[in-house]
Amino acid sequence: STTEEDDVEIPLPPPSEPPTKVLDIDANTPDNHVPRDPRMIRLTGVHPFNTEAPLTTLYDQGFLTPPKLFYVRNHGHVPQVLDHEIPSWKVSIEGLVENPITLTFTQILEEFEQVTIPITMVCAGNRRKEQNMVRKSQGFSWGAAALSTSLWTGPMLADVIERAKPMKKAQFLCMEGADQLPNGKYGTSIRLSWVQNRERGIMLAHKQNGEPLTPDHGRPIRVVIPGQIGGRSVKWLTRIILSDKPSDNWYHKYDNRVLPTMVTPEMSKKDDKWWNDERYAIYDLSVNSAIVYPQNDETLSLGETCPEFYRFRGYAYSGGMRRITRVELSLDKGNTWELADIDYPEDRYRETERELYGGRLDMASRDVCYCWCFWQLPIAVNRLVNAEDVVLRAMDESMTIQPRDMYWSVLGMMHNAWFRIAIRKDSDGMLRFEHPTVPMAQPKGWMDRVKKEGGDFANGNWGEKVKGQVDDSAEMP
Amino acid sequence: STTEEDDVEIPLPPPSEPPTKVLDIDANTPDNHVPRDPRMIRLTGVHPFNTEAPLTTLYDQGFLTPPKLFYVRNHGHVPQVLDHEIPSWKVSIEGLVENPITLTFTQILEEFEQVTIPITMVCAGNRRKEQNMVRKSQGFSWGAAALSTSLWTGPMLADVIERAKPMKKAQFLCMEGADQLPNGKYGTSIRLSWVQNRERGIMLAHKQNGEPLTPDHGRPIRVVIPGQIGGRSVKWLTRIILSDKPSDNWYHKYDNRVLPTMVTPEMSKKDDKWWNDERYAIYDLSVNSAIVYPQNDETLSLGETCPEFYRFRGYAYSGGMRRITRVELSLDKGNTWELADIDYPEDRYRETERELYGGRLDMASRDVCYCWCFWQLPIAVNRLVNAEDVVLRAMDESMTIQPRDMYWSVLGMMHNAWFRIAIRKDSDGMLRFEHPTVPMAQPKGWMDRVKKEGGDFANGNWGEKVKGQVDDSAEMP
Repeated sequence: STTEEDDVEIPLPPPSEPPTKVLDIDANTPDNHVPRDPRMIRLTGVHPFNTEAPLTTLYDQGFLTPPKLFYVRNHGHVPQVLDHEIPSWKVSIEGLVENPITLTFTQILEEFEQVTIPITMVCAGNRRKEQNMVRKSQGFSWGAAALSTSLWTGPMLADVIERAKPMKKAQFLCMEGADQLPNGKYGTSIRLSWVQNRERGIMLAHKQNGEPLTPDHGRPIRVVIPGQIGGRSVKWLTRIILSDKPSDNWYHKYDNRVLPTMVTPEMSKKDDKWWNDERYAIYDLSVNSAIVYPQNDETLSLGETCPEFYRFRGYAYSGGMRRITRVELSLDKGNTWELADIDYPEDRYRETERELYGGRLDMASRDVCYCWCFWQLPIAVNRLVNAEDVVLRAMDESMTIQPRDMYWSVLGMMHNAWFRIAIRKDSDGMLRFEHPTVPMAQPKGWMDRVKKEGGDFANGNWGEKVKGQVDDSAEMP
Repeated sequence: STTEEDDVEIPLPPPSEPPTKVLDIDANTPDNHVPRDPRMIRLTGVHPFNTEAPLTTLYDQGFLTPPKLFYVRNHGHVPQVLDHEIPSWKVSIEGLVENPITLTFTQILEEFEQVTIPITMVCAGNRRKEQNMVRKSQGFSWGAAALSTSLWTGPMLADVIERAKPMKKAQFLCMEGADQLPNGKYGTSIRLSWVQNRERGIMLAHKQNGEPLTPDHGRPIRVVIPGQIGGRSVKWLTRIILSDKPSDNWYHKYDNRVLPTMVTPEMSKKDDKWWNDERYAIYDLSVNSAIVYPQNDETLSLGETCPEFYRFRGYAYSGGMRRITRVELSLDKGNTWELADIDYPEDRYRETERELYGGRLDMASRDVCYCWCFWQLPIAVNRLVNAEDVVLRAMDESMTIQPRDMYWSVLGMMHNAWFRIAIRKDSDGMLRFEHPTVPMAQPKGWMDRVKKEGGDFANGNWGEKVKGQVDDSAEMP
């Protein structure tokens, strides 16, 4: 019942134009076999490769992100897998199964139904730089572009593990990748019941936007889990272990957690109980959003040629397959709000049944949301002139709305407080917009400015001096 | 493989001791056939019966609530169903099905596997009185006891509708009850995919805590949907209609919605588009919690016999089958927090497989949460002496935490901002605790006091005068 020939227009990726050259900067690292795009912003020095695209570059690609601009979170060096090694690449399924098996890459492609699904991946650290400005966490400073979307092709993970016959007492699916790290190989786990629930769309992927996986994204095969943080979607997959306990891998235990806010770095070092409590492990993403346009440091001349409206634009997403149901902006610090328009490109895939990239496009029967969406709201420029800032929040179908306040925790994760753009009035009749932070760039955004001015982020006004407040300290011009 | 004989102790309901007499207050209403408990607080006058138990009475019952103290939301009069009519009570399954059928009550009991599941039900209006104090909504003033938990027995709804063979284009399951209301019968809908996903535990129930349903709770048969607002769990069920659209029932469209906060009652009356937007319909419950002890107006003498600690206690829950993963209290208005202990009685059912009330106790293989939990935290009394209030918030496994701020909307629903207890120092050396509101009782709690004192709830300090603020207005003694 599938056809290539219906006339539904679905989002397709921009030309991939994959980089073919290894960058000079990578030449003396273990990743000297990985061609990359020089636009990617390196957040942890040269190596390992932890990168996001400039926010506008990402956004301008549209709904689907080409692999070269897709954010990357590598804990160590990228396993080198040669072309001729791929067909015999092995994934074992072991632990609490009646029929332990090892499948080759070729078997995974040939012996299971292949599907193609659009899925947004998001790092648990997206927007962490804002948290680090308030109080340094143990994580590095992601901007707001630690998320990307692609079409992924491969089998449902449920189909693959069924072959190994999971035992009744198996409750968790542990995964391990091929990357060699200081604390062993990267591994983590999720609940087995999630994998077995096909509504959740948990899959193995060997193609991204119709092309074989690139080294940074898990070549030759990886896990992709919709609606959950990227840290659970293991790259360079080699082992699947069914268990009655969550993974005991070092990276499962000491990463991707939101410890309670009163737990200091010292407390967390002294008492392992904080890390042994699986309740603090992150799975579902939180509802979140960001303003992309205006960009940081973008200006708007108020002269005669100034347009009547400026169109604010950005993205939003939630976790657990939940749909964004409203996006609201405020020009008066949250006293009153107005609704933005929302576009859900993902919905267009639901209207067709066809083959795509060698897999069945598997959205027609799904009523859950795996992807980001876009919002826009034109705002009259004369209102911007009279506002100090614009704040943004999204709500999802569970009526969960982004909170005003930050929840600080040791690892600095899941930051989803209101996204705020400050509006500065330059002396030459220009409005200048400031993002909260910008990764590795100048100028750095309003949080850096407020901090240098000695502002207290907890003052209820994002650290800015309250209007009318008596204060003799230096004022920006 | 089920046994009555393992030695796991599971929570069982307190003695039901059902009321047998119709109360005088109901004698002249259409509900003059319904025996009730006089302790239930009537929130909409005498009739219809919309009631919650006093918060401490509810809490003191423990994990399971007897039907007579279980909150009730009736839109009109209770259908009278005589004993001899029950076996032939009919439920039709119609609409987009290949095999439309009508099942009798007896068939539903005899032809489908029966399960017993503990499920907490919560009204979308729980805690609405706090919202109404800030700005009157169109809903009546529930306190914090619009929730209750029972063991429910009946078939999975997925099994029942399977018999009618849903068509592929069916996407919604519409339901209708027998109650005759001003705008037709009560009806609503949920997504069909939720029903078919057995993890969600959506069921028909004909027994509550092992006894046939009472009239107020849907006698003889109802729908029960874990993790969603009570308004979707249709009582006195007569019709199931599969459809490609959500229900067009008046009560589905104009009730149980969170319209965007900027939509005023006038806007909502003028433009039906606000009600036609299914994105604003509520399904999943939000993460929420309340302090039960200390009670409103409870006092603590600070003399020699005063204990060193006072044990704060209460409940928490979330929606969408998500587990509460932390409960935090603050004595300094949210600057610092401490962790409460959490008890999940629901977990004990997972440790056993047995028959209960004629159904298979169906929790052993479920790793989701359908029920409320309890928290407690002993706080040193000398710290309470120095605090102005205690605020409470819970977080669930999706890292969603209760927000500080209220989201006001026309219908006044899903209020889940921090729960705050004010601490008053009486002149005679007593601490006196104030809840935010108390339904239909004296004294009324701190919101009423603050309002009478002219406080502005939006002042960032819950309307209380900020410490050190110069103010000559009358101070409470």
